[in-house]
Amino acid sequence: MTNHLSARSVLVTGATGFIGSHLTAALLREGAVVHAVTRAANPPSVPGALFHRYDGTTASLFGAVKAAGPEVCFHLASLFRASHNTDEIDPLIDANIRFGTQLLEALTLASPTPPRELVFVNAGTAWQHRGGSAYAPVSLYAATKQAFEDILEHYASSGLKRTTLKLFDTYGPSDRRGKLVSVLLDHVGRTGPLPMSGGEQLIDLLHADDVVAAFVRAAEIASSGSMQPAYSLSAGRSVTIRELVQIVEKISGHPLNVAWGARPYRQFEMFEPWDAGERLPGWEPLVSLEEGIARLFRARA
Amino acid sequence: MTNHLSARSVLVTGATGFIGSHLTAALLREGAVVHAVTRAANPPSVPGALFHRYDGTTASLFGAVKAAGPEVCFHLASLFRASHNTDEIDPLIDANIRFGTQLLEALTLASPTPPRELVFVNAGTAWQHRGGSAYAPVSLYAATKQAFEDILEHYASSGLKRTTLKLFDTYGPSDRRGKLVSVLLDHVGRTGPLPMSGGEQLIDLLHADDVVAAFVRAAEIASSGSMQPAYSLSAGRSVTIRELVQIVEKISGHPLNVAWGARPYRQFEMFEPWDAGERLPGWEPLVSLEEGIARLFRARA
Repeated sequence: MTNHLSARSVLVTGATGFIGSHLTAALLREGAVVHAVTRAANPPSVPGALFHRYDGTTASLFGAVKAAGPEVCFHLASLFRASHNTDEIDPLIDANIRFGTQLLEALTLASPTPPRELVFVNAGTAWQHRGGSAYAPVSLYAATKQAFEDILEHYASSGLKRTTLKLFDTYGPSDRRGKLVSVLLDHVGRTGPLPMSGGEQLIDLLHADDVVAAFVRAAEIASSGSMQPAYSLSAGRSVTIRELVQIVEKISGHPLNVAWGARPYRQFEMFEPWDAGERLPGWEPLVSLEEGIARLFRARA
Repeated sequence: MTNHLSARSVLVTGATGFIGSHLTAALLREGAVVHAVTRAANPPSVPGALFHRYDGTTASLFGAVKAAGPEVCFHLASLFRASHNTDEIDPLIDANIRFGTQLLEALTLASPTPPRELVFVNAGTAWQHRGGSAYAPVSLYAATKQAFEDILEHYASSGLKRTTLKLFDTYGPSDRRGKLVSVLLDHVGRTGPLPMSGGEQLIDLLHADDVVAAFVRAAEIASSGSMQPAYSLSAGRSVTIRELVQIVEKISGHPLNVAWGARPYRQFEMFEPWDAGERLPGWEPLVSLEEGIARLFRARA
């Protein structure tokens, strides 16, 4: 990893989340001064990060930005829902559109005009691009992420250096999201059946270390001013769920009792590998799926 | 105009606005049952329309939709700002994204699943397409309109028949928006100078009658299921502001005292004629600019 962020002020949203906490730790190791915003009165501890309080208003973010004086903002906060119920309309819009818009307003307001030295790296999702299309959302969640990208373009037109990294699926240490890799590793050594879908859908899994490196690299590219509006982050290889299970079985040395077909496929399960969007220059994934899963298995042993 | 909406239940948002009030009157003349939603306790009167109260929640819209049972929804409500200040972030998101999302949720929730018989005609703006591009917003307002179109695509994927009409500029009777045509007609006979920009930018002006016909036609096309996601509504002819002034002078028989260059151009004034997007099949503007302005002038005499 380059150290272009050393001694620089960086603002991270979603710093207590999965990728956010890995990114924050990496930035601190690089010597960056890491600021974070949170709605929580008592945020989970992220050692070394300086927390600022967000009370739902742009004014509170302006205060945070004024105090932090960030040169780079990594925007990873979001509310994920694979599908939504009616009560979640407002939370999804608040978390995935309103908060980010208020943040962009605060950042540009606190910056010299035009904000040409300010870098903003946004986290998007491959679920905005069903079937690899320019835009076809899998869920309302994905639609709100696309909506925020559109808002971001408004701020880009006033000089903000922005880019969005489209993530597919991620895994790594300290993953408390209950996602597939963790579920499979948790099941090693258990005898009861693990109910799964048919398992033929493809997934594109990126290790947290590679995701973090991509965010740092994206900030570097944006800082030079030569960024694209978005890049896709792909592991460069897709596996079916069934192949993933085989990898876990091989590494753990235990057969997994999976009840294939016990759960339905989701309405818009991605069966095709995802290959839309520009590749991030100067970055490639370094942690193979076998290596990443082996590391997780060893850490549990 | 066709009368395919006769005796059908139609929901109009923004019914008290400029285009909304013209559309509502036309729908009532066609024999449609027109429902409207409003936040106001005492909405401006639109004779014949049935008003339902929106209190900021999806639940209130669900109640309105359950009562109205609309087959077609025309979504014209929006908050316009040529540029915004920081206090307007939340109102712009609430009016242009949240309200429409809640409405879509209420409509699909109240409909049979999937909502294949439900038609949704949305009002967009040419200001989403600076320089005729696929997307380049002129303002945060335009970005919020684009963001809502993204949300709309999510609901389209569950079967909603939707389309968006991209409006450039509009004029006609009962226009209380203080826009250019009204300002020029108000100035006829006055002697003081009217401060204007350089006047070389092009505008594409559509008469309210033609806009209303386009919305009705769009509902018809969507109803057949053969709609595109969006259509551009162009007058088919652009004039410079200077040419528009000459038209008003010719029709009124009075020279206008215009102080050209007394005001700056806006940051993203559109100088190019706008020619992006699909044309609405089976519709063309019928009211020429000269005819429309002559009608307005005669109505004032």
